[in-house]
Amino acid sequence: MMQIDEARALDRDDPFADTARLFDLPQGVIYLDGNSLGPPPRPALDALARAAQMEWGHDLIASWNTADWMGLPLRTGARIARLIGVDAASVIAGDSVSVNLFKLAAGLVMGGAKGVAVERGDFPTDGYVMEGLARLSGTPFALIEPGTGVAGLPDHVDVLVRSAVHYKTAAKVDIAAEEREAARLGKTIIWDLSHGAGLVDLKLERDGAKYAVGCGYKYLNGGPGAPAFIYCHRDVVEHFAQPLSGWMGHASPFSFKDGYAPAKGVTRFGAGTPAILSMSTLHGALAVFDGVDMAGVEAKARALGDTFLAAIEPLGLACVSPPSAQRAGHVSLVHEHGYAIVQALIAQGVIGDFREPDIMRFGFAPLYLTHEAVFEAGTRLVDIVRSSAYRDARFAKRNAVT
Amino acid sequence: MMQIDEARALDRDDPFADTARLFDLPQGVIYLDGNSLGPPPRPALDALARAAQMEWGHDLIASWNTADWMGLPLRTGARIARLIGVDAASVIAGDSVSVNLFKLAAGLVMGGAKGVAVERGDFPTDGYVMEGLARLSGTPFALIEPGTGVAGLPDHVDVLVRSAVHYKTAAKVDIAAEEREAARLGKTIIWDLSHGAGLVDLKLERDGAKYAVGCGYKYLNGGPGAPAFIYCHRDVVEHFAQPLSGWMGHASPFSFKDGYAPAKGVTRFGAGTPAILSMSTLHGALAVFDGVDMAGVEAKARALGDTFLAAIEPLGLACVSPPSAQRAGHVSLVHEHGYAIVQALIAQGVIGDFREPDIMRFGFAPLYLTHEAVFEAGTRLVDIVRSSAYRDARFAKRNAVT
Repeated sequence: MMQIDEARALDRDDPFADTARLFDLPQGVIYLDGNSLGPPPRPALDALARAAQMEWGHDLIASWNTADWMGLPLRTGARIARLIGVDAASVIAGDSVSVNLFKLAAGLVMGGAKGVAVERGDFPTDGYVMEGLARLSGTPFALIEPGTGVAGLPDHVDVLVRSAVHYKTAAKVDIAAEEREAARLGKTIIWDLSHGAGLVDLKLERDGAKYAVGCGYKYLNGGPGAPAFIYCHRDVVEHFAQPLSGWMGHASPFSFKDGYAPAKGVTRFGAGTPAILSMSTLHGALAVFDGVDMAGVEAKARALGDTFLAAIEPLGLACVSPPSAQRAGHVSLVHEHGYAIVQALIAQGVIGDFREPDIMRFGFAPLYLTHEAVFEAGTRLVDIVRSSAYRDARFAKRNAVT
Repeated sequence: MMQIDEARALDRDDPFADTARLFDLPQGVIYLDGNSLGPPPRPALDALARAAQMEWGHDLIASWNTADWMGLPLRTGARIARLIGVDAASVIAGDSVSVNLFKLAAGLVMGGAKGVAVERGDFPTDGYVMEGLARLSGTPFALIEPGTGVAGLPDHVDVLVRSAVHYKTAAKVDIAAEEREAARLGKTIIWDLSHGAGLVDLKLERDGAKYAVGCGYKYLNGGPGAPAFIYCHRDVVEHFAQPLSGWMGHASPFSFKDGYAPAKGVTRFGAGTPAILSMSTLHGALAVFDGVDMAGVEAKARALGDTFLAAIEPLGLACVSPPSAQRAGHVSLVHEHGYAIVQALIAQGVIGDFREPDIMRFGFAPLYLTHEAVFEAGTRLVDIVRSSAYRDARFAKRNAVT
């Protein structure tokens, strides 16, 4: 069985010890919920303060030009692009994952797609939004069996929205293999990178992916409800039309002309005026990734997960996450009293989360966590389960957020 | 001709002298662009700092419950509801005006509407988004002649998106009269309140309006790209379906079930996770309106506009805004060198904006402006035009934002 000394030894060669200093986590907290809401890196709070006080408060309307608020969605997108392995000009930040999925899928429908699908048990909002699109456009919508991928699409459905990393299990999809299969079958995939971006060493362009969305507030640490992003490959973007065609996606937003004409490139995915304070925060947060090797990030995440699993091994809990080679940034364990156990851990400063009906989720963001802290968290989980400390009325049920 | 003493006399009975103290405008600036981007009220910056440092930085994921981030869209909506004269539970904040217009119009199309229209020359994004909706859904889209309102709709078109206050001229529409005409003709109006909310004494419910959207960053002072809002009357909301049906509009977002079921009331207009930092700022900004009489706000805006027009009367400029009884918060003047003149004014600290091709726009937000400052701004405009000081290479053309 693993001992704390072994965990400490793993920390000795931590390539991210410097980035950890950019995070000010509260004293006594071991934060294992960065897969749900990343904590604030200092550059994010600095960028927010500058945007609020100097740019908004002092320079006022002029900041659209002087602080380049106009260019902020593309500048933020460029920082994300490197993390997911695509051309810097092919990503734009803005809106939410739900709204961005709608833009991409609706655009494919406008371009002739015959039907849209989502895997059963994938993150629910993806399916909800495709249902809405189907109802509005008359395009068929299908829920297909989990894990079947494009091979599981009915003949009449040619678009699949799929998470690259599953929100519950953290299982990674082999994007390159799925894209090869999609090409063979004449299908199109829109990837939801929410639980992968900023953690998995994604290489979307190399792997043949053309469309993706992702979340700014998990491993990208952009703040609660941070703007999301859209990736659209340069080979397809100039012919891509999307229906949320607001003025910020117009070729010439300040000519104030009737009649929509899309801007070049991914700027056409702009809709209304972006939430500048939230987006400045995300842009600042992304500075933490400057010079960071994503393969190293992904490897450390898996190693942290393994340290946690080693620490809790005596409990013999069922784990719904795959072994580390197929796993991204979190592990999900099953316990009938999972909710209460997570609450008991939170009361001790170990923050994970719970997902219905019986899943305890613990995330291992490599930029601010040590093996020692993760081992300590595992040890406390063992103590809480063994001592039945979770059987306390304080730990009764409430809601939580991905 | 008006003299500065008369302007000062008007300030003596200013009912909003106290609210002006809540704004920290930069020294030497006379800000006449609150119709485009309101300046930060102190409670907005305080709310933002609390949300970023305490809620996000310290309480982390728990803030979804402990800081009631979950309830923030409705709490923000309730503050807006009073300003537009509707039931507190019938407004939700979130997304952008463009996206929210899409939700309402697409929902009407899903409910059987036969066509959507916008007046030519209305704020362009409204038309752009309706074009997108038409293309996706196959519903006809029409551009109708300016000022014709629902009476100008072709027979086959039954939904009109219309600004309650025109972005260029500040002309107010008689909402009650338009709604009576709509009822007579069997048409539906979606009001865009962007240039009215927080300035005009709107009484949407009394006037029979059932659907509206509006902007958070103009007279509501919610910060650049602040979340927008949707109003939907309680008599129609429970049967209203909208296609951007993300998890935050679901009846039970945390059950993580496949299959969409809308939440009760306007919560169903929620889509993705809201931008909490931007929305906290807007929520804080709205505290400035606590106890403020909107009839008094509107009256002061008109009076400030009249003071400005009196100050610049010697120039004899054409004014495209209507007389004060039909005018909201800004005046728009025509000058072939309008762009350069606005730049020359900005160089002197008087901030207005320019709209193609030749419109100078000056906004009169009553919560922080005095008649004396507005008169002074007018005097400087007179000096710049008379002295031709605007004919300087520094004042060459760039873009600006509404």
